[in-house]
Amino acid sequence: MEALVQPGMVSDMPSDTRTDTTDLQVAEKDYFVQRDGVRFAGVHLIVDLWGATRLDDPDHIDAVLREGALAAGATILHGHFHHFSPNGGVSGVLVLAESHVSIHTWPERDYAAIDIFMCGECNPYKAIPALKKGFQPDRVQLAEHKRGMVG
Amino acid sequence: MEALVQPGMVSDMPSDTRTDTTDLQVAEKDYFVQRDGVRFAGVHLIVDLWGATRLDDPDHIDAVLREGALAAGATILHGHFHHFSPNGGVSGVLVLAESHVSIHTWPERDYAAIDIFMCGECNPYKAIPALKKGFQPDRVQLAEHKRGMVG
Repeated sequence: MEALVQPGMVSDMPSDTRTDTTDLQVAEKDYFVQRDGVRFAGVHLIVDLWGATRLDDPDHIDAVLREGALAAGATILHGHFHHFSPNGGVSGVLVLAESHVSIHTWPERDYAAIDIFMCGECNPYKAIPALKKGFQPDRVQLAEHKRGMVG
Repeated sequence: MEALVQPGMVSDMPSDTRTDTTDLQVAEKDYFVQRDGVRFAGVHLIVDLWGATRLDDPDHIDAVLREGALAAGATILHGHFHHFSPNGGVSGVLVLAESHVSIHTWPERDYAAIDIFMCGECNPYKAIPALKKGFQPDRVQLAEHKRGMVG
């Protein structure tokens, strides 16, 4: 699994055997990334929005999350959003070639819990502006986990 | 939004208006929970499995996650699992009435990153035995976030 890593690259170089596949881009992004002398599976951003708007609109939420995922460089494979009654909350997820984005909203509290988990060369932080624009939160609370980190 | 909370209850009592709905069980579980003098949206368990098996089998992974979700008391609304080539990794998610369960696997490293996010009366820790039985990991690394916590 070891491979040369060029400056600025965060994912493994494809091995010779992998260059045979027609699905090369996905294959490259599937492997552990290396940065700052450690290796890990992916970056998982935990995003909590407070004082946010339009949290009861599944179509809007779907569009905002897709915009954020694409801005982060991700490839969207599947999306599903569920609208709860009677409070209007939405639970939804985008399954990505590079992991997932999920959201759960509590419109009665103007609160949303979002996860952006991305491996490979994606940068989950680049999804944040779309979330801010789409939901206009008063406050954004962030935490980062590097998942599967090994020294 | 304030309501009486009886001992042992973790979700809000339904308000009078909410008792009109036929979807009461979901409605009850959608609201912030109260425990230890704080209120929060839900418990988010971050679960990393190392030395795990059968991480390249989407049907098995689907079944294990469903078993875990049900053991935790959750209601499954939707499931989607994607099988990557050529490394055999799986990305998948269950959307629940009480948030979500997600998984991403790196079979070449015997590693899986799992999230169990559950609001309401569900107990995400009760999903862990199904994960241990299904994937036989050498090591399970856990972290808990209370999402949306307010004092």
